Amino acid sequence: VSGTVYLVGAGPGAPDLLTLRAARLLESADILFYDALVNPEVVALATRAEKIAVGKRCGKHSSAQAFINKRLVAAARKHDVVVRLKGGDPLLFGRAQEEIDALSAADIRCEVVPGVTSALAASADLGISLTRRGVSRSVSFVTPRAGAGEDASNWLRAAFVADTTVIYMGSGEAGKIAADLIAAGKPPSMPAVIVENASLPEERRHFATLATLSLAAEQLNGGPALIFVGKVYAEAASAAAHEHQEDDRGRAFAAA
Amino acid sequence: VSGTVYLVGAGPGAPDLLTLRAARLLESADILFYDALVNPEVVALATRAEKIAVGKRCGKHSSAQAFINKRLVAAARKHDVVVRLKGGDPLLFGRAQEEIDALSAADIRCEVVPGVTSALAASADLGISLTRRGVSRSVSFVTPRAGAGEDASNWLRAAFVADTTVIYMGSGEAGKIAADLIAAGKPPSMPAVIVENASLPEERRHFATLATLSLAAEQLNGGPALIFVGKVYAEAASAAAHEHQEDDRGRAFAAA
Repeated sequence: VSGTVYLVGAGPGAPDLLTLRAARLLESADILFYDALVNPEVVALATRAEKIAVGKRCGKHSSAQAFINKRLVAAARKHDVVVRLKGGDPLLFGRAQEEIDALSAADIRCEVVPGVTSALAASADLGISLTRRGVSRSVSFVTPRAGAGEDASNWLRAAFVADTTVIYMGSGEAGKIAADLIAAGKPPSMPAVIVENASLPEERRHFATLATLSLAAEQLNGGPALIFVGKVYAEAASAAAHEHQEDDRGRAFAAA
Repeated sequence: VSGTVYLVGAGPGAPDLLTLRAARLLESADILFYDALVNPEVVALATRAEKIAVGKRCGKHSSAQAFINKRLVAAARKHDVVVRLKGGDPLLFGRAQEEIDALSAADIRCEVVPGVTSALAASADLGISLTRRGVSRSVSFVTPRAGAGEDASNWLRAAFVADTTVIYMGSGEAGKIAADLIAAGKPPSMPAVIVENASLPEERRHFATLATLSLAAEQLNGGPALIFVGKVYAEAASAAAHEHQEDDRGRAFAAA
């Protein structure tokens, strides 16, 4: 008889944006595997558990996925409650499928606990709805991060077509993304926002347009960042432009 | 001096998928306005609050938005902690923008607390990731529900282009949606799943293809339902088909 592996969404970062179910599971965990990007305050909730850091989204120090899978299987054969904690939601850019499949192949019970994805937390702090009557009733969540041999055109089409677009893991190539969207036909004046460290005290927001997006991305401090594009940001971006916001290096970057 | 209005996501339905922040705010609420679709167990957490039901997603008994806005403003002038509770997340098909704008116009402090949107809860229960390396790196969240005079073509394009599509508030017109997607060029064999009452004990899942989607929708019991379309559902849909699943009326509906 083996234990259960819970793939748990840790939410966007703020510890109190964890779900009640996730908090309870952390408290009862025998062993915890967590992504390096998960807030240490959230990890600390697993008071009883052996705690093991695995993986880091941006490549450094990441354990190979096959190795993580093996460790999850081994842990479930030894412990009742195995928690695998992932930033945001496990099933939206969380790479959970490989772990689910490995556990299923090993005949180990696996449950997924959903979380607040960072795009919703960033939107909450912006106070701007992703959908809006008469303006937006489609939202795309996309990433430019491709596996080997993947076709890049599809995500770009999805990013282009939706009324509101959220780009995960794209801030490092913001200039190229903006250029691609403009080349595909989006107006350079289309409003955009970059939100870094959503839900955390160090959260930063950078309003821009597609034309100024790469300049806005230069203001980032290396935290996880999301890019939002769409008409729903028009008012906020134009208010920011009129304030001639200064960034932390004292340079005006808001859309002219 | 007026109080603060918290627009709070109640999550998909299961009370323990509420965030810690939402639970704390409910406990301290002086007055609570809640959508009729919110789980009564969640509403009951607001032990101190005067509780007022407003709105119901599917049209019946819904208070006009302007009237809700007025009541929120009036409540904030009388109470410190006003909680406006919405199913799922407030900013993804939650119609929160009108309330945010009305509060802002009345100079009332407003904070949004994000929630677990039902698509993520349904995906967790399915155990199927919305994104998957080599298969899906774009997800569209769309609704066919249009306001007066809105153009329908745009949401359909967004639904068509993404690798994985989630359709909110569309189960009542599942046949038309499937026909439109097929007419746009999606193969009739494209896998689809309808999940009703995500995260609740009465949750039901209906695997299908676009060709059989309207038949699957006939199995629904009138609860809130989401339609998922994409290659990531291929294995599960084909497994369901091979099991020749019988629905609650004893009729096989899985894709042949």
